[in-house]
Amino acid sequence: MRFVIIGGDAAGMSAASKAKRNNPATEVVVLEQTEDVSYSACGIPYNIADAQRDVDDLVVRRAEVFREKQGIDLRLGHRADEIDRAKKRVIGKAGGSSFDVYYDKLLIATGARARMPNIPGKDLPGVKVVRSLEDGRQIKAYLASHRVDKALIVGAGYLGLEMVESLHDRGAQVEVAEFRTELLPWMPRAMAQVVRSELEGKGAKLHLGTEVCDIRPIDGRMKVFTRKDSIETDLVIVATGVDPNSEIADRAGLELGPSRSIAVNKALRTSDPDIFAAGDCADAFHVITGKRVWVPLALRANRSGWAVADNLFGDVVQLPGIVGTSVFKVLDMEVARTGLSVPEAQDEGYDVVEEFVKNRSRAHAHPGNQDIFVHLVAEKKTGRLLGGNIVGKEGAAHRIDALAVALHARMTAEDFFQCDMAYAPPFSPVWDPLLTAANQLLKKLK
Amino acid sequence: MRFVIIGGDAAGMSAASKAKRNNPATEVVVLEQTEDVSYSACGIPYNIADAQRDVDDLVVRRAEVFREKQGIDLRLGHRADEIDRAKKRVIGKAGGSSFDVYYDKLLIATGARARMPNIPGKDLPGVKVVRSLEDGRQIKAYLASHRVDKALIVGAGYLGLEMVESLHDRGAQVEVAEFRTELLPWMPRAMAQVVRSELEGKGAKLHLGTEVCDIRPIDGRMKVFTRKDSIETDLVIVATGVDPNSEIADRAGLELGPSRSIAVNKALRTSDPDIFAAGDCADAFHVITGKRVWVPLALRANRSGWAVADNLFGDVVQLPGIVGTSVFKVLDMEVARTGLSVPEAQDEGYDVVEEFVKNRSRAHAHPGNQDIFVHLVAEKKTGRLLGGNIVGKEGAAHRIDALAVALHARMTAEDFFQCDMAYAPPFSPVWDPLLTAANQLLKKLK
Repeated sequence: MRFVIIGGDAAGMSAASKAKRNNPATEVVVLEQTEDVSYSACGIPYNIADAQRDVDDLVVRRAEVFREKQGIDLRLGHRADEIDRAKKRVIGKAGGSSFDVYYDKLLIATGARARMPNIPGKDLPGVKVVRSLEDGRQIKAYLASHRVDKALIVGAGYLGLEMVESLHDRGAQVEVAEFRTELLPWMPRAMAQVVRSELEGKGAKLHLGTEVCDIRPIDGRMKVFTRKDSIETDLVIVATGVDPNSEIADRAGLELGPSRSIAVNKALRTSDPDIFAAGDCADAFHVITGKRVWVPLALRANRSGWAVADNLFGDVVQLPGIVGTSVFKVLDMEVARTGLSVPEAQDEGYDVVEEFVKNRSRAHAHPGNQDIFVHLVAEKKTGRLLGGNIVGKEGAAHRIDALAVALHARMTAEDFFQCDMAYAPPFSPVWDPLLTAANQLLKKLK
Repeated sequence: MRFVIIGGDAAGMSAASKAKRNNPATEVVVLEQTEDVSYSACGIPYNIADAQRDVDDLVVRRAEVFREKQGIDLRLGHRADEIDRAKKRVIGKAGGSSFDVYYDKLLIATGARARMPNIPGKDLPGVKVVRSLEDGRQIKAYLASHRVDKALIVGAGYLGLEMVESLHDRGAQVEVAEFRTELLPWMPRAMAQVVRSELEGKGAKLHLGTEVCDIRPIDGRMKVFTRKDSIETDLVIVATGVDPNSEIADRAGLELGPSRSIAVNKALRTSDPDIFAAGDCADAFHVITGKRVWVPLALRANRSGWAVADNLFGDVVQLPGIVGTSVFKVLDMEVARTGLSVPEAQDEGYDVVEEFVKNRSRAHAHPGNQDIFVHLVAEKKTGRLLGGNIVGKEGAAHRIDALAVALHARMTAEDFFQCDMAYAPPFSPVWDPLLTAANQLLKKLK
């Protein structure tokens, strides 16, 4: 059995390692177009924040380890271009020459790429995206060789806001240009305002409803033109989202899913049973709606990579799907979500009830108490929980998992409210903020 | 409708307030034997830790507020002695004289009391328990008026260990005498060792298998005799557990539950339908076993108080029960548990599989990373999760709630492993430690 994997990051290397662990006789070939494998892409903003840290700290396992200790045939600098499904071959380029590899089973784990708006000046040396380890190296090299007093981040999604913290920590005055007129549109306005206050309180400037249309070099800096005015800056970080690297699958005639991600079943097989897809290039089923959805996140990438390895010799693992749980940190604020937002739930046809509470992170009178904000969304008819958001300076990131588990368990707000949660004064009020939010939500459901 | 409540702390005052909110016409009479109501008993160790804080900071709502703003007939210094069920009257003493109050519905919310072993010297002024606000005042007064270089805590349960932190913060050299031969017997030995190392690393001395049998005053200090030797100390804190204040219910012929707590149904009614019991004096159903259990904790006290108020005019609320989730902090360590321990599960007849993992609190290479330890227990036959423990310097306290929700949802280890949890480098590895533990457990279940 020759198992070929296109892409050597989270999903690809998880699959490669597990395939070898499951059955050392499996021949595992990984085709990776860059020189980097198996690194923590999500750690890049935090690494950039610290001038002293080497970007290569983010490498989880080095190529030699995969090759020598695990017996994986890892081929760096190998760009796969085409899949010949009839002949079961992957065709591509390495160095100056072509290659052509036979597979018994193939995994497409090509990930996603940073979306770069097509604007004049996007190729200037001071305009960067944050996606690959190489992007991280380039940004750090730029910071080391240029004076960056001001930085402009284009896009206020989670990566854009993580980069606010990162560049703020590097001493830059940070501005953010977001083309949407609302910050974090998946949460209630009062909750987004908490995040906005954190940003502005620490000196970051937010421009909503602002589209960047031109970037011009000027006296060693850059002038960024929006539809309304212009901003001078030393560094531009473009964080306007990602697109799945699904072209190779599309050209091979494989079925695509939402946002042109590669459609896979619960066993991670594409429309060709000999070809799997996993990680940020592939879709998933949403546990709440049962529908296909594209939410490229690291845990799913690792989980689906493992599942592919388990299913090489027949479908052993069926992944039930995701609820889209995510968290990020911006300055001192933890921002977490899971499940459907109100607009998403309404788009799915749910009649929605929502509740938003401001609460405290610790017990009455306990030192160090912080505000914590909890938002819950439920279906009116059944009371079933559909999703929620948590924002706060402590305890938001880990609390979201309790709600994520409740969504997987298809709990109603009442079921959730009855859960026996932990209490001690340093960690929560007697009624955890999650329970208080559920109780308030129940009043609206009655 | 006259609703009489015996006991004015968590359960009693929760019931009183909610009864008035539900129906302002309800006459609510609270009989409280002390002069204190509605305070955070769990906050006492943390308050003692700080000489500058007033113990009365822990009062959540003052008596006047209950009386004047909420219209509750709150009678302090009223000790209830007997319940005459035939005449529906509570008989007791207030000041020098007797009282006798008629009830339509009665709530017994008498709480639990610190267990004091019957040893010579237990009444010395330097021997204290930590239960009521008055206990807190006495300990702080003692600390203010005596030099306490050394303190001995008798009992290494959660209160005893919280008091280690508290008195360590006050500058005392702390020793702990525990009659059991094992520390925290509900968790794996390797996990208890983590807590022990934290204690010993910060200078606390632990004497396991050590029974205190005599305390004698000596030169302004005390000499505490164990079966083996003796320890000189300036302060003795007895934290050897609590007993339910159920005698008044027992004398009235009401049915008792485990550990002589007051037996209640899911609507919180005792064996007399006109008498409810709630809080630390009452039992509950365990969600895993379905059996009666006595686990006196603050959330259940508040929850059951509310439920009684809702059920005054007929059973509206049925509480499904508890899983016994609890957490405490000792020095820099968070110690959390939920569900059944291995010995408890075995006593219930479960064939048990358990897994214990050491993991990291943050992503690979993220600064500030700490060890975190997760223990999971499941039923071998079905894979159903039965309980678990989490210990670590960060993220243990809030992570336990995700497991508690899974227990309420009757999830298997596989269900739990499939949950889509949050990931960002400051908060966890890509695979949350809970998921890593579940994955390891699954290998044992297969």
